[in-house]
Amino acid sequence: MEIYIEPIGQLINEFSKLPGVGKKTAQRYAYKIVDMTKEEAAEFARAILDCKNRVRYCKVCGNFSEEEVCEICKSRDKSTICVVRDPRDVVAMEKLREYKGVYHVLHGVISPMDGVGPNDIKIKELLARIDGSVKEVIMATNPDVEGEATAMYIAKLLKPLGVKVTRLAHGIPIGGELEYTDEVTLSRALLERKTL
Amino acid sequence: MEIYIEPIGQLINEFSKLPGVGKKTAQRYAYKIVDMTKEEAAEFARAILDCKNRVRYCKVCGNFSEEEVCEICKSRDKSTICVVRDPRDVVAMEKLREYKGVYHVLHGVISPMDGVGPNDIKIKELLARIDGSVKEVIMATNPDVEGEATAMYIAKLLKPLGVKVTRLAHGIPIGGELEYTDEVTLSRALLERKTL
Repeated sequence: MEIYIEPIGQLINEFSKLPGVGKKTAQRYAYKIVDMTKEEAAEFARAILDCKNRVRYCKVCGNFSEEEVCEICKSRDKSTICVVRDPRDVVAMEKLREYKGVYHVLHGVISPMDGVGPNDIKIKELLARIDGSVKEVIMATNPDVEGEATAMYIAKLLKPLGVKVTRLAHGIPIGGELEYTDEVTLSRALLERKTL
Repeated sequence: MEIYIEPIGQLINEFSKLPGVGKKTAQRYAYKIVDMTKEEAAEFARAILDCKNRVRYCKVCGNFSEEEVCEICKSRDKSTICVVRDPRDVVAMEKLREYKGVYHVLHGVISPMDGVGPNDIKIKELLARIDGSVKEVIMATNPDVEGEATAMYIAKLLKPLGVKVTRLAHGIPIGGELEYTDEVTLSRALLERKTL
């Protein structure tokens, strides 16, 4: 006989599909659902369906959107475009509440190891957005091998179009300690040192 | 403007209600749902509703059940009853695949600090189950203050009924080391030492 009765076993199974969730955690989550009121559980299920059914991608920047064109593309300064890998990177940037421009989500980075080439991510769509009104493109892909390569590749394509291309600065994180900074970061911080 | 569009914000909110899930984790889970196919998301939502709607408590032992009386109560040796606090403790015992008896789920332990008295947990229901056919009651509440007190309290009520009451053994966990065993456990292990 099974250890869990079927509906609980099923739900544990579903929760196990979430990133970083093992059997034990999935079990805790499932018990929490059992402990909820009928209304709370219905609300939860509805939120999942809603999220799947109402969220699509903005046809301009590729960020999550409820409408064809997202709020950011509609209302913000279009002369600066910040290029990121994922919609979740947009969230990270938005949390600053400092950046006033728009975004372009690549939905991936160039990674020959994983068989992802320049045509598999939204580079063509980015180039199509570059007209006289765009003054600066900020490359904000992650500072790893693929992110760097993607930034370089795109920069090369953009420069002939006469647009300024910048990259987020790398270095020691604020509040970090020299002693615990990894060597790659530290050597980069040294290389990109600034005159005071 | 909000950082998340509404359906995603809502789902992050729902996921945050799960035990031990903060904003960051809830966000990862929500993105995973967005990445799922429509069918997968529908399956997930259905599992939640199912779990809430199909799971109830066995009217005999109080464990989770799909029917009025659970599979364990229907099919197993009723002469031994293992008393636990929660349905999840039943799962822990069942994983052993050794115990052949039935269970009684108290749905809590006596805890004056939290205002939980003997009448707030399923002790009456346990007493009602004790007839001539029950030979042994194993107290398997947790080895903490409330669990111990509850075990003692119930043992006192059961003994006059002529039923054998036992308690799970306490001591050093198998594979544990003396050096790292906490003092309470170690002193208990010493107290309950056995002749070889």
